[in-house]
Amino acid sequence: MIRVRFLGTAAARPTVARNVAGIAVHRTGRAAGLNVEAETVLWDCGEGTQRQLMRFGAGFSFSHVFVTHAHADHFLGLPGLLRTMGLQGRQEDLTVYGPPSARAVLQTAVQLGVGKPTFRVEVRGVEPGERIAFDGWSMHVFRVDHGVPAVGYALVEEARLGRFDIERARALGIPEGPLFGRLHRGETVEIEGRSVSPADVVGPSRPGRKVVYAGDTRPCRETVSMARGADLLVHEATFAAEEGVRARETRHSTAAEAAEVAARAGAGRLVLTHVSARYSDRPRVLEAEARDVFPASVVAHDGLLVEIGFRD
Amino acid sequence: MIRVRFLGTAAARPTVARNVAGIAVHRTGRAAGLNVEAETVLWDCGEGTQRQLMRFGAGFSFSHVFVTHAHADHFLGLPGLLRTMGLQGRQEDLTVYGPPSARAVLQTAVQLGVGKPTFRVEVRGVEPGERIAFDGWSMHVFRVDHGVPAVGYALVEEARLGRFDIERARALGIPEGPLFGRLHRGETVEIEGRSVSPADVVGPSRPGRKVVYAGDTRPCRETVSMARGADLLVHEATFAAEEGVRARETRHSTAAEAAEVAARAGAGRLVLTHVSARYSDRPRVLEAEARDVFPASVVAHDGLLVEIGFRD
Repeated sequence: MIRVRFLGTAAARPTVARNVAGIAVHRTGRAAGLNVEAETVLWDCGEGTQRQLMRFGAGFSFSHVFVTHAHADHFLGLPGLLRTMGLQGRQEDLTVYGPPSARAVLQTAVQLGVGKPTFRVEVRGVEPGERIAFDGWSMHVFRVDHGVPAVGYALVEEARLGRFDIERARALGIPEGPLFGRLHRGETVEIEGRSVSPADVVGPSRPGRKVVYAGDTRPCRETVSMARGADLLVHEATFAAEEGVRARETRHSTAAEAAEVAARAGAGRLVLTHVSARYSDRPRVLEAEARDVFPASVVAHDGLLVEIGFRD
Repeated sequence: MIRVRFLGTAAARPTVARNVAGIAVHRTGRAAGLNVEAETVLWDCGEGTQRQLMRFGAGFSFSHVFVTHAHADHFLGLPGLLRTMGLQGRQEDLTVYGPPSARAVLQTAVQLGVGKPTFRVEVRGVEPGERIAFDGWSMHVFRVDHGVPAVGYALVEEARLGRFDIERARALGIPEGPLFGRLHRGETVEIEGRSVSPADVVGPSRPGRKVVYAGDTRPCRETVSMARGADLLVHEATFAAEEGVRARETRHSTAAEAAEVAARAGAGRLVLTHVSARYSDRPRVLEAEARDVFPASVVAHDGLLVEIGFRD
């Protein structure tokens, strides 16, 4: 299961009900043909994110924080988070990723207020087009359109092994046991002098899951392209249609524009976040406008958990 | 009325129930012989303070933030707070005070993440013994004992005019009206050829109120001295007695030690704050230990409002 936990869903500044940007993505469990170690990454880390992690039980066991851009509501939670990790005696390295032009300010942030560091923090610039490889998945970096250098991130799992046809394997006289696994993993095996190849019992490889977070952006073709086939697109919807001019001026999106991106990409689901204070207590306005364009839309609230299983 | 609003009451790192350090002191209303303009100051500004100000309706109408020391849980809320003030179009200058050795880190904090500043922020170093004068009150800075340069702050009102004895004034034949005010403010007036002096109708001047915040500290004589005659002492109580050794090692106080300071000073009331995560959900442990020493003790919770009227 991939669990996407919305830690903060406000735009620019917090409200009583919504903290600023932060999303924890937790990937866990064992899936057919894929061993998945429990792993969490953070997308953005606005002020107060450490407390939101506590509040929603998301924990601090992560080593990779991906910041979309250098606007303060997306990274001011770093110094406090890192300090608390240090107070807890953390030893494991941690990497903060962001656009290269954001490196200096992120470096300042990760050093601010840390006394004696107990672990190493690296700030790493990432370029659009880059893919940061992990065990069984990678984080794809893509350019978005926000007036300042800004990127989105897509968690893309490797293709999974094809479906193993147990009935067919039995019919071919293969005894249940280790041979099943060897065939599934692509080995040809010998049974009573006959050769059985994987293609006889294993279907075509199946796509992994894909979760896309566009950060702060105007609707743009890079997001459409990256969200193609995504199980989940997380897109900002700072404004409703009535503030369309302001959305363009501030390089943000309206709910309907975000929904249009999801529709053009053919994404599975759309979750809207980065809600202006004006709509903090009435997100239904945004949700209704989005659903007119893309029915599988919801507006996130702080603490929202979206779970993504395999499609097949 | 002076209203002391506890915005965050946790030590070092937030918990689900408690945010890190921040106190808003609001002084308002019109008192006998003293015109008091509504005015708010902030003592410390840990991460998330801006959201606590929103949550408890304390507002952003203040221009003076007094930071006790450069530990991150006492100032990491500055960049986000100042950014939000800027987004709201603030024009008024704001001053951040702190020990001189904290100036550099505070300067970094107030510049971090601010795009185009709409107002001027000055970081000003303050020395123990200094008194920063305001209209009708001053902020006294005093040295505390925390291992790093750290100060406490005391809001000290000017002495008020003495009580005006209306009966006596009438007996002396003074007509009600402007002459009452002139006498009260210290002028000698002429009535039908007779001279009436203020001493005839006005009692001795009465002390203003005093609210003392010691910040992070071991119990120390400077706090005792400053809290003498205070209406309210706000003192840290990071630990219970069972962690007395740790309190000494980390230059913090136990609840009983804080109560001892209040008792020795003869303070009116004691509010304990800066509660270790260990006691976050069971502050009664700290409260009981303090009350054994100083009965007028309470442990603050986030949102606690303490109101201080005049004693006479």
